[in-house]
Amino acid sequence: MNIRTIQWQKNKIKFIDQTKLPLKLKYFYARDIESIWQAIKAMKVRGAPALGAMAALGVYLGVKNSRAKNFSGFGKELNKVISFLASCRPTARNLFWGLERMLSVASSNQEKPISVIKKMLFKEAQSIIEQDRLICRKIGYYGEKLIKNNDKILTICNAGILATIDYGTALGVIYRAKQEGKDIEVFACETRPMLQGARLTTWELKKKGIGVTLICDSMAATLMQQGRINKVITGADRIALNGDTANKIGTYNLAVLSCYHKIPFYVAAPKSTFDLRIKEGKDIPIEHRSAKEVTELFFKRPIAAKNIKVFNPAFDVTPNKLITAIITDKGIIRPPYIKNIKKMIATRID
Amino acid sequence: MNIRTIQWQKNKIKFIDQTKLPLKLKYFYARDIESIWQAIKAMKVRGAPALGAMAALGVYLGVKNSRAKNFSGFGKELNKVISFLASCRPTARNLFWGLERMLSVASSNQEKPISVIKKMLFKEAQSIIEQDRLICRKIGYYGEKLIKNNDKILTICNAGILATIDYGTALGVIYRAKQEGKDIEVFACETRPMLQGARLTTWELKKKGIGVTLICDSMAATLMQQGRINKVITGADRIALNGDTANKIGTYNLAVLSCYHKIPFYVAAPKSTFDLRIKEGKDIPIEHRSAKEVTELFFKRPIAAKNIKVFNPAFDVTPNKLITAIITDKGIIRPPYIKNIKKMIATRID
Repeated sequence: MNIRTIQWQKNKIKFIDQTKLPLKLKYFYARDIESIWQAIKAMKVRGAPALGAMAALGVYLGVKNSRAKNFSGFGKELNKVISFLASCRPTARNLFWGLERMLSVASSNQEKPISVIKKMLFKEAQSIIEQDRLICRKIGYYGEKLIKNNDKILTICNAGILATIDYGTALGVIYRAKQEGKDIEVFACETRPMLQGARLTTWELKKKGIGVTLICDSMAATLMQQGRINKVITGADRIALNGDTANKIGTYNLAVLSCYHKIPFYVAAPKSTFDLRIKEGKDIPIEHRSAKEVTELFFKRPIAAKNIKVFNPAFDVTPNKLITAIITDKGIIRPPYIKNIKKMIATRID
Repeated sequence: MNIRTIQWQKNKIKFIDQTKLPLKLKYFYARDIESIWQAIKAMKVRGAPALGAMAALGVYLGVKNSRAKNFSGFGKELNKVISFLASCRPTARNLFWGLERMLSVASSNQEKPISVIKKMLFKEAQSIIEQDRLICRKIGYYGEKLIKNNDKILTICNAGILATIDYGTALGVIYRAKQEGKDIEVFACETRPMLQGARLTTWELKKKGIGVTLICDSMAATLMQQGRINKVITGADRIALNGDTANKIGTYNLAVLSCYHKIPFYVAAPKSTFDLRIKEGKDIPIEHRSAKEVTELFFKRPIAAKNIKVFNPAFDVTPNKLITAIITDKGIIRPPYIKNIKKMIATRID
């Protein structure tokens, strides 16, 4: 079964409404940027690479009906759309990267007619989508070499098909390993509070025929203690110049556990997740989300005393020293990270 | 507000139905051992010390209407009741300890009339309850000395009033510290899958006027990374001769995190939680529970793909080397544990 998370269809963005999974596979059609903003905020679509693609398509959707006659007017509308979409979620680098790519196309073609610029923006958004498909497969290609037959791999959140266009980063590595004939067993952390591991990762791994065991986040330590995990692979939302990595809350916990149990800890992410202007993880902006995500089970039933304080960061930061290697579409990056990230990521234009 | 978890009332055991918290404070009345067994299995009542008290009262409830004329018949009935209650949950030592205390009273008084033995069993169960109240206060007395003003304390599951008769072990230490005028802030791990931290610990801490912040289990690492936790205190379900401690799943995770972040990690438990016949943690029987606890949010709504494997141990084992000290009703036990546990626990009759 081929699953495609996001696509452009008949003047609309068609994407899987991930809040409905695993109960049903339902598509959502966005016709305006307000509904994109809401969809991203509510995590109907999520995952750093998917957000990059959504941002790009969103920019096109936001300006395609512009009536501006010149670039001065068009540029203002474009900037407004971009600022609006940028205000949605603060952590994932790819969202901003997608917006910047679109801005760059427009800016460097401002002498062209608006109708041409619009076409170029559409082409750029489509190109980001097609590139994501290729990039994920490259991550899979490089990452697969780290995987051994019969590996038991722990992952958190969802860094699979549903976090990208159709393949995944961390899970892409596993899909490629399977394709190469390796038997893999995956342990999926449920990933409280929004349960992306339970809802999304188990769903897509099952569709892809990969053996998966669901655990609560607190159980990873026990599996490691019992020698039942060989590797941890996670995605990333933003990677600093020194390799410090922001990813779904709970990732840092797994990195500490991996260090203690001497298990390799890998991050898988495309070049677009790197933010080389940010030197260290402590400077990555971390989104804090509604207390209700924690105090109410999917906003339905209270599970805690009323009016208590809640700490609900959506992401945490794993320091580079806990990361064995970063699997990218350009190859595997190992320590020393500043040097090797510069070499692999900063100096290449593609 | 005084909360009393378990009490004997008019020929019934009256106890708080903890599955109804925090939505409502509702009592359950057990008139027979089958309903006790079900209540313990379903975690209407839970917490190692509370299970010790329930077991004792349960034994009395199970034999009080015995028509046996001699000890031969009575002893058979008694053993049947004890075996039945012992089959309920395997990990918490206190359950078995409560049953053994009851058996011992009957066995050493078998020459007495059955009616007298019944009265002695009732007295023994009541005495276990009264002792629990005193023991928890002793744990609080010793443990409080470890707490500094303005400490930020992380805990998991519920080791409070609701896990005992009316005071708590880990939370008893905090209640005593508050009584001594110390300002404490508690971070409560929600404790998936059954959410005892979210449902029970926030509820009772709020009732007791202690500041509490709820977190998902995966967020503890981030709080520690940010220097926002001074101490971790947990309860225990069974402690081996060498200090290895079985407690709610997720405890071992916190112990590893505490070690990595150099934060003291304390276990608080009464003498009755020690099992000196078990030399190491690996020999403690660990209960695995229904997959539905993980795959369905409180058995109401599926949150994972259908028919996937689930790993759901109810407890984990923290090795002694990760435990800074064990706070007991006999005093604080520090390493070397085998020597000091023998000294403090094994050699004292009281």
